[in-house]
Amino acid sequence: MNDKSYIYLDNAATSWPKPPEVLTAVTDAIRDDGANPGRGSHAMAVRASRILFDGRKQLGKLFNVKDVNDIVFTSNTTMALNMAIKGFIKSGDHVIATSIEHNSVRRPLYELEQTQQVSVTFVNTSYTGELDVTEIQRSIQSNTKLIIVSHSSNLLGSIMPIEQIAELAKRHNIKLLVDGAQSVGILPVDVTALGIDMLAFPGHKGLLGPQGTGGLYISPQIDLAPLMQGGTGSQSETPFQPLVRPDRYEAGTPNTPGIAGLAAGVKIVLANTVEKIAEQQWQLTQRMMEGLIRQNKVSLLGPTFGKPRTGIVSLVMDHIDSSELSFILDQHYKIAVRAGFHCTPLAHQIAGTGQTGAVRASIGLYTTEAEVDAFIDAIHDIAKQY
Amino acid sequence: MNDKSYIYLDNAATSWPKPPEVLTAVTDAIRDDGANPGRGSHAMAVRASRILFDGRKQLGKLFNVKDVNDIVFTSNTTMALNMAIKGFIKSGDHVIATSIEHNSVRRPLYELEQTQQVSVTFVNTSYTGELDVTEIQRSIQSNTKLIIVSHSSNLLGSIMPIEQIAELAKRHNIKLLVDGAQSVGILPVDVTALGIDMLAFPGHKGLLGPQGTGGLYISPQIDLAPLMQGGTGSQSETPFQPLVRPDRYEAGTPNTPGIAGLAAGVKIVLANTVEKIAEQQWQLTQRMMEGLIRQNKVSLLGPTFGKPRTGIVSLVMDHIDSSELSFILDQHYKIAVRAGFHCTPLAHQIAGTGQTGAVRASIGLYTTEAEVDAFIDAIHDIAKQY
Repeated sequence: MNDKSYIYLDNAATSWPKPPEVLTAVTDAIRDDGANPGRGSHAMAVRASRILFDGRKQLGKLFNVKDVNDIVFTSNTTMALNMAIKGFIKSGDHVIATSIEHNSVRRPLYELEQTQQVSVTFVNTSYTGELDVTEIQRSIQSNTKLIIVSHSSNLLGSIMPIEQIAELAKRHNIKLLVDGAQSVGILPVDVTALGIDMLAFPGHKGLLGPQGTGGLYISPQIDLAPLMQGGTGSQSETPFQPLVRPDRYEAGTPNTPGIAGLAAGVKIVLANTVEKIAEQQWQLTQRMMEGLIRQNKVSLLGPTFGKPRTGIVSLVMDHIDSSELSFILDQHYKIAVRAGFHCTPLAHQIAGTGQTGAVRASIGLYTTEAEVDAFIDAIHDIAKQY
Repeated sequence: MNDKSYIYLDNAATSWPKPPEVLTAVTDAIRDDGANPGRGSHAMAVRASRILFDGRKQLGKLFNVKDVNDIVFTSNTTMALNMAIKGFIKSGDHVIATSIEHNSVRRPLYELEQTQQVSVTFVNTSYTGELDVTEIQRSIQSNTKLIIVSHSSNLLGSIMPIEQIAELAKRHNIKLLVDGAQSVGILPVDVTALGIDMLAFPGHKGLLGPQGTGGLYISPQIDLAPLMQGGTGSQSETPFQPLVRPDRYEAGTPNTPGIAGLAAGVKIVLANTVEKIAEQQWQLTQRMMEGLIRQNKVSLLGPTFGKPRTGIVSLVMDHIDSSELSFILDQHYKIAVRAGFHCTPLAHQIAGTGQTGAVRASIGLYTTEAEVDAFIDAIHDIAKQY
């Protein structure tokens, strides 16, 4: 594409454009570094090891992690969530999650319900996707072992009260897994201060890295069974997966070029500061909402104007299907948004859009006020014709 | 690095250099394509879908696969092997594998032995890594469900008689999983003609793509449980992983840039033809072996001179540890090889190098005769000093 006039509002799927530093880091790694990190003593293999270490170091700064070996790389958030959920939950356990969870949480949980003696309670949020912590408290059972919460809804943009949930979890000796798919690089996430036991995160959304990257922070208190076994370059002679982190969770050849790009992306986030990014995204969503509220054919989903949210604004327009609306935006206005169900059917039920789906506009680090205004104008323009 | 004088003989770990077409494909995908394939109707998302389809199409040609949706992408061979092994083998099953298997086969099998009622027989090869099919035949039990064979040993370079094993498996109604880590793009692999039920392969070795890529071919006759569940963009409303391929096995955001690079790599392999690549690598290994056999302080592992092998030559030198030898080659001769146990301890036991490890030199598409000769000279030079 590479077309400056194209307006990209699908940053909740993947951020775009990627910073030039990310592209350079990926290119350099592919061009210059052969071999597998940790598996050879030659110069290129050593440099590949350094890329992985640097990636962990940058992420460690961002999440305030003491030992960077508690951060393991995965190919996406889904893999991190599968690793956390299947490696932690045991037969007989009860799990609490929320109605705004993505299918990457919901489907592994349904799988465990089917194949193991695991029970799950999905706690409802309000129709705007806002969660009352007492709802979680009410769902706690004697065998509740894990609470899983998406930090921010990928449909509604609402933000979950992680600090209160973490405190509740700690009080009941329950572990907390946070799905940071829509929050990492966008909202501050301090795993130490918040008391998060596991944090699954994407590399290619708020962290500005390439697709094919992500990871899982695992608190040293958590003894997690690995999802996969294989070559680690370490302790080759033992038949079992080594216990040492990160090797235990990183079998096989890692995505070194992708991780190089991710490290470059995190550096940019750190330089901007997450606090400023959060504020900037909030300002832009408020501008967008203000422009759209005036259009009475449009219903906005998620928290009301003025309330906290991440860079996501989803909407439904009267008399027009969400796929058609998205198609018109793409074809006639060169605006990229996402239509449909966004892999989060329960959130749609909650929001009342279970039948219609919704159009989601999502803001990124490089979204401008002019782009937001062009989107508002396009929506008003289309509304006139329906 | 990007240093023409550096001699890279670690292609069995990852091929290097990557062709410029691969670099361009990765770069274009990062620069031009936002959004997730199959998850948005806008132009960039459509193009990302096409990249995945093109990748499958190229691999389909290479492996002679009828329906390209039977090829699923993974982040590496290890993930493909874990998916195949854990998704297929059930409690009570018996599995046959060989002593040359990589830890990416061995460790998942040990895991299943520990946690499920699964039993495994590791069939010994000869000390040169060559397999007598009657050894497999002798190990078949009434509950044998799967034979797992590495197409070529990552330590010894020996080639397994896949065709005979496939025939034997078919006769006994046992399924065959081939680990193509060291053969794909280097030896012809026709899954239809050979009757391979599952083929796990890396994207970044013989196929010349970037690290972070790989895949699994799954015959339509195989009903494989997925390793992970999550968002697929399809059938978002159902709580279960959709059954349709490839979605069933590809939850979460794929590594679109990596797959773009992989597709570019496969095109180069197809243009060269695997047959010619196999011949070229064999000629170079023979040249290397001929040069090394003259040095009586050096012992070569694997098949003897003149016999079939892939582009791998491993050796042990008297009076010098393999790590030290590799270090000297890197520091003084700018030659990258790999020392150690190569994640395949049983193969080392077989070859008699279980205590010492070995130095592995592995040839790639871009290895020249001059580089092979420089390696031979370096080995003779070092031998003089020990």
